[in-house]
Amino acid sequence: MKPPRVRTYVCRCAKVIAVDIAVIGLGLIGGSLLQALAARGHRLYGYDADPATRATARTASARTTSGTRWQVVGSVRDAVADTQLAILAVPLPSLPGVLDELSGRGYTGLVTDVTSVKGAVRDLVTQRLRPAHARLAGYVGGHPMAGREQSGFDAADPDLFTGAAWVLCLEPDTQLGEWLDVAALVTSLGARVVPATAEEHDRAVAAVSHVPHLLATALAAAVAGDPLALTLGAGSFRDGTRVAATRPDLVAAMTGGNPDAVADALDAVIASLTEAREALDEDDPIGALRPWFAAGTEVRTAWPPTAGSSIELPVSVETLLRLGHVGGWVTAIAPDRRTVTAVRPA
Amino acid sequence: MKPPRVRTYVCRCAKVIAVDIAVIGLGLIGGSLLQALAARGHRLYGYDADPATRATARTASARTTSGTRWQVVGSVRDAVADTQLAILAVPLPSLPGVLDELSGRGYTGLVTDVTSVKGAVRDLVTQRLRPAHARLAGYVGGHPMAGREQSGFDAADPDLFTGAAWVLCLEPDTQLGEWLDVAALVTSLGARVVPATAEEHDRAVAAVSHVPHLLATALAAAVAGDPLALTLGAGSFRDGTRVAATRPDLVAAMTGGNPDAVADALDAVIASLTEAREALDEDDPIGALRPWFAAGTEVRTAWPPTAGSSIELPVSVETLLRLGHVGGWVTAIAPDRRTVTAVRPA
Repeated sequence: MKPPRVRTYVCRCAKVIAVDIAVIGLGLIGGSLLQALAARGHRLYGYDADPATRATARTASARTTSGTRWQVVGSVRDAVADTQLAILAVPLPSLPGVLDELSGRGYTGLVTDVTSVKGAVRDLVTQRLRPAHARLAGYVGGHPMAGREQSGFDAADPDLFTGAAWVLCLEPDTQLGEWLDVAALVTSLGARVVPATAEEHDRAVAAVSHVPHLLATALAAAVAGDPLALTLGAGSFRDGTRVAATRPDLVAAMTGGNPDAVADALDAVIASLTEAREALDEDDPIGALRPWFAAGTEVRTAWPPTAGSSIELPVSVETLLRLGHVGGWVTAIAPDRRTVTAVRPA
Repeated sequence: MKPPRVRTYVCRCAKVIAVDIAVIGLGLIGGSLLQALAARGHRLYGYDADPATRATARTASARTTSGTRWQVVGSVRDAVADTQLAILAVPLPSLPGVLDELSGRGYTGLVTDVTSVKGAVRDLVTQRLRPAHARLAGYVGGHPMAGREQSGFDAADPDLFTGAAWVLCLEPDTQLGEWLDVAALVTSLGARVVPATAEEHDRAVAAVSHVPHLLATALAAAVAGDPLALTLGAGSFRDGTRVAATRPDLVAAMTGGNPDAVADALDAVIASLTEAREALDEDDPIGALRPWFAAGTEVRTAWPPTAGSSIELPVSVETLLRLGHVGGWVTAIAPDRRTVTAVRPA
């Protein structure tokens, strides 16, 4: 028998109604969300485990000239006390503790997160938050593709999500109504909601986000202690290593939290680099490398995918996941919540 | 017995005097040089093997509103007919043909180039240009670190070299007077002259420029035919693959023209990635990856090197090469050509 559920609609129509939202973790993403959601009229409660970050976020609210305010509170418990939605914006290693606090409090609102791995978080939520209570919390896994190499509340930007792809996971136990709630909130920030399973997400971001961090770091580390090389580094080094400036604990949690998919994606890249390495040993390395380079050029010059025209799609798990498969995204939820406005790549 | 030499001073003092200069190859770098040098009052003769590029360059000169003009001519021979300096800005595979034309014409002016490999070009110059004549052409190998993923005259920008590092090679057979001539011209464009041997150059750029192109391409090629991944690609994918958009023949010539140094640098990066790959298999991949990431973060957050205060250095091959070793550069040549103004990293 299914346990009874408290359904918590964040919105009941395309126009998102103002709700009370907790943001747990006030780094770059959490801080940006706090500001972006407060600017849209929601009542925001922020919490961060670091007292200095809380002080910074509190001061920023007091100093804001836009009239947009948020409250910064001293515990997870206080943050979620009166909220219908809790957004978890802490690094993966801090998630178990936060989930335990929600669980201990008997939280039954809706939970979403912004962690860059989705399978591991889904498993944590199942283990720690949902089995403990008859009145279960709802959960929709999320991941905004909007990082920066700077971290912390000081780098936060309420416009960070404009135009960004934002994965919202559709899993066997996802409530479609809750998914639509979070999707409506996310599209209200100007982000493009990409439906995917946790597994599809983890495989895709391993290739386009986690492995790029590994390559950037390997590239930077290779010229440690080589002043001539460091002085000669120009555009290709600057861009190729940019994300190597990210805090090591954050990227270690991101890549190490998605080990299987990252291992597969990294194996593919190492195999490709090994091909190039072998071409360098050929009698005519220039000729041998030309087709190897051409394959990457074709992909990169066609990127980013351009948007096709907007279409209306009926709301169903199958339709939404098919949209994600082909690289499409949702831009709006219809007032009756039976259709979404979607875009496929041209 | 050394052959008699015609010494061709481009300048005799810190203030560069207007000279006649040929630019062979009018792509991004050649086109930018044509415009930048013409704007500084030199008389410029440009040539490109492609008639369409010549037409574009000719039209651009006619249309310029700044009063800066250049002549576009129909052959290498015409370009160098009355010039004291020939700048070769063609890709490596086209260089032998151009050098043969200069040699066939009995060119005895000064030659420099902007090719991204220096050992291979030095050898070509020795084989094809310099042994054939009693009255030898002078040669100073150069490489401005100022590429872009766009190519062609249309992407040219007279400000491309402002602040850029520009290697000028000091080899056993480099004439210091000629090196100073080219250095004065290069510093007049606002570039930072980095003295290095061809071997030092090739090793350093393999690490900071050639391998980054290989990584960018491998990263882009890995997501071919994966629409979900392409849609989720954000900042780390954008920057990590930016230079994969470069024309394949150009990057193949660049990396394949420097095969030994690129092979060594690529081996080091593959070894580093293999370490990360092994960390992913550990029981605690997050913990295992943290120190691995920290090494790269340290390098990247300290990059680019900040400039120390300006110093005056006596002109000698040893002093200049030592400056390059420690990551320093030359910003000006003194009027008496006995000292240079130099900067070391802070």
